[in-house]
Amino acid sequence: MKRELEYYLQQRRKMLAMQYADFVIGWDMQTDAAENSIIANSEQSAALSEMQYNMTTDPKFEKSVAVLYENRAKLDEVLRHEIEEMYKNIANTKKIPIEEYTAYSELVSKAYPIYVRAKNENNFELFRPYLEKIVDFCRKQTVWLATDGLKGYDVLLDMYEPHYTQAKYDEFFNLLRDRLVPFVKQKTQVPTAVPQWAKQKFDKEKQREFCEYLRDVMCFDKTRGIMKESEHPFTSGFGTDDVRITNHYYEDSLASSIFSAIHETGHATYEQQCDKSLNGTFSGGGASLGMHESQSRFYENVIGRSKAFWAVHYPKLQKLFRKELKDVSLDEFVAYINRAERSFVRTEADELTYPLHVMLRYEIEKKVISGELEVKDLPAYWNEKFTEYFGITPPTDTLGVLQDVHWAYGNFGYFPTYALGSAIASQLFHRMNEDFDVEASLAEGNTKRINEWLKEHVHKYGSSKYPDEILRLATGGEDFNPNYYVDYLINKYSK
Amino acid sequence: MKRELEYYLQQRRKMLAMQYADFVIGWDMQTDAAENSIIANSEQSAALSEMQYNMTTDPKFEKSVAVLYENRAKLDEVLRHEIEEMYKNIANTKKIPIEEYTAYSELVSKAYPIYVRAKNENNFELFRPYLEKIVDFCRKQTVWLATDGLKGYDVLLDMYEPHYTQAKYDEFFNLLRDRLVPFVKQKTQVPTAVPQWAKQKFDKEKQREFCEYLRDVMCFDKTRGIMKESEHPFTSGFGTDDVRITNHYYEDSLASSIFSAIHETGHATYEQQCDKSLNGTFSGGGASLGMHESQSRFYENVIGRSKAFWAVHYPKLQKLFRKELKDVSLDEFVAYINRAERSFVRTEADELTYPLHVMLRYEIEKKVISGELEVKDLPAYWNEKFTEYFGITPPTDTLGVLQDVHWAYGNFGYFPTYALGSAIASQLFHRMNEDFDVEASLAEGNTKRINEWLKEHVHKYGSSKYPDEILRLATGGEDFNPNYYVDYLINKYSK
Repeated sequence: MKRELEYYLQQRRKMLAMQYADFVIGWDMQTDAAENSIIANSEQSAALSEMQYNMTTDPKFEKSVAVLYENRAKLDEVLRHEIEEMYKNIANTKKIPIEEYTAYSELVSKAYPIYVRAKNENNFELFRPYLEKIVDFCRKQTVWLATDGLKGYDVLLDMYEPHYTQAKYDEFFNLLRDRLVPFVKQKTQVPTAVPQWAKQKFDKEKQREFCEYLRDVMCFDKTRGIMKESEHPFTSGFGTDDVRITNHYYEDSLASSIFSAIHETGHATYEQQCDKSLNGTFSGGGASLGMHESQSRFYENVIGRSKAFWAVHYPKLQKLFRKELKDVSLDEFVAYINRAERSFVRTEADELTYPLHVMLRYEIEKKVISGELEVKDLPAYWNEKFTEYFGITPPTDTLGVLQDVHWAYGNFGYFPTYALGSAIASQLFHRMNEDFDVEASLAEGNTKRINEWLKEHVHKYGSSKYPDEILRLATGGEDFNPNYYVDYLINKYSK
Repeated sequence: MKRELEYYLQQRRKMLAMQYADFVIGWDMQTDAAENSIIANSEQSAALSEMQYNMTTDPKFEKSVAVLYENRAKLDEVLRHEIEEMYKNIANTKKIPIEEYTAYSELVSKAYPIYVRAKNENNFELFRPYLEKIVDFCRKQTVWLATDGLKGYDVLLDMYEPHYTQAKYDEFFNLLRDRLVPFVKQKTQVPTAVPQWAKQKFDKEKQREFCEYLRDVMCFDKTRGIMKESEHPFTSGFGTDDVRITNHYYEDSLASSIFSAIHETGHATYEQQCDKSLNGTFSGGGASLGMHESQSRFYENVIGRSKAFWAVHYPKLQKLFRKELKDVSLDEFVAYINRAERSFVRTEADELTYPLHVMLRYEIEKKVISGELEVKDLPAYWNEKFTEYFGITPPTDTLGVLQDVHWAYGNFGYFPTYALGSAIASQLFHRMNEDFDVEASLAEGNTKRINEWLKEHVHKYGSSKYPDEILRLATGGEDFNPNYYVDYLINKYSK
């Protein structure tokens, strides 16, 4: 086994270097590279993917992993989990024909700039041929990767959130539908007017300055990461020491950049707080998308929309926008950032209606992957379902089916993890409050105490354990329980 | 040979993909990545370099190249040149021990952020241990790569400019010393005062806007490249379709960003105008550093400092800086951008004194590589020699030995190509004027006609020929002749 372990570690080093290249290239494509440059160099991305595919499926590497897998009882816990995952990963990778894999990588890197243009120009037809090919690949994936336990959409769901299947998500969304949907309908029936002060212009430079301040409040280590602008805010990291976030600034929306900053810095905190010993392994980063989203939503909603948080930081914001916020009290501001209303765009949706946006996507994806719904019918179906759930109809595809980047990346099965994340956040909040008074700790002016609790109970594990396992460790033995989430929302919005 | 060619093309595709990764990672390090991120991930850069080393020295690849080399008479001209270069490259690469190569790659990626800090803090000692190791490697390189024809510093010089050795450079610099140095001494004896108007503050945003305008004037295709900011302006490209430049903006210097923009766009034009058939081969990009620099300096100095150019574009600049340039006539502006004076910083030096800055570095490098001069003595030696040539002494190392990034990258042998570039630019200018009146063509408002001439006579070849060969093709059979350069300068500055 010693020889196999040596070979594994040697190859892992190279594979990580290739992942680092992917990380930087991906960052570059989303923040810098010109549209035609991306298209012209999609050939290089394809070649890099192919090389990674070949490394993963290299017979000698596969053999080494197989030997380590057989002897996994002798490995330390972290490496054992990593080898188990790698063993599964190799088996799955080999099931995807190399030509399909290469063509798909090339397709996805070409699709992104087209998607951006299609969204900007409200032109679904421009993006349609790309999305059709992407969906085609995802459907094939469910066949290639099917196992006894996983079929159809479940195959994709498990890729994004291990151990979560349609049966489990259906249960979760059914609970939301039973307890939350009637509550939301009632709460949002009468549209609450946007206060006049919120309709002012808010200087982008000042928004940027405040978002920098928020990164300090959240103790983001700026020597190990940066903040930049992009079409759609995101977080991207490699190890604990290179963690990057982006944001976008709209003059006519003060809240948008603030909550994007808190959300993405939440993701970044998770990455920065992984145990450093996991750098240079495949066990770093977040445990899963749902667990990652639980952290970003915890900071964004549970903390970032609380009165306790703004009692400390609103004066700073008010000072920055002296003219605009002069006559806006703390209570008015907190009420504004916690308004619930029917709206079109998921990323701008409030905490209460948010899960409905996710539910819509979950149901659409189920139908798309099963073949019940075709890409060409997506815009119409989206609008129909949207109207049914929200009582309002998107005026454009930009505000409808084209609003999210995920499908352009081929990320079918990803969306449900967002709602899962919010639910896990509530469950963790409940547990954290048993250890200390979370909102009271905000009086210290930063989130240090919260960060430390999350580091100790969630972040430090990186991806060295499954998310459900980490949740059990963090909660003292509980399984995922969405009732905390529904209780939290109904309680908060009943006030 | 068919099998070997197939294998070569297959491996070339992968090697190009790795070069693309290098290109993006390099860009990222110089424009985005946080200092500690770079240090933490230097391990990944090392692994990527090692993989490239292994690909180049892979016995099967080497064998294929050897077979193609033997049969090179049967290959088309472009591939023949590429194989000849690759054959030499493999032989050279194999002469460098892999551990040394890997350690050096890691060293260089760590050295960059340290260099930036050392420069900002005027702290040569901080950078010294890194530079010592870099010099140590470069000296070893001259031993590893020595041939019958090339020894010592010549080994490095040839790496940056094939077929140019100390003997040739000495001849060139001796000519400059004989004819130019006395002329410069006389011209700069009495310092010309900086006009009051040039000491105003020039808004950075407006400078940015004007530099964007200049990229249009120079017909830079913005869909295939971007412009960003960095510590030190540079151009970086991959193929014809991803060509990037950076700039820096100083409120107290209007000229700095303008001439950096023209200079870097000159480099970029060369890259964008290579023949597209060279994409996906190793024969794209510029033929050499000297040839590349000839293009940037041609646009920057010959074109960009001419009255004919500003007769068209000064009104735009004046409109942008309405208040600041209100009372500054075209003649005053042109006189200002063509002032000659003794100054400390190469990149900010005027056209006339510039080659003296390069001569200084050439002489220092000769001594450093031969071992006559040690790194610890560099700051003092720099200041001593500088005083001798310019009659003024740098007040800090930031304005002295630390001003250039090249040595932090291990680029010894690079500097002389800058002076060579200026000289080639004059030689090409002379030839171009025989075809059409270059300055008169600027009345059209852009550099289209000039671009076309350079594309046809220089750019289209990419690196598929040696620079001296391209120069002969462009000039109708002439060898490099620095007299054009000296004539040009003395003529221009005698007016």
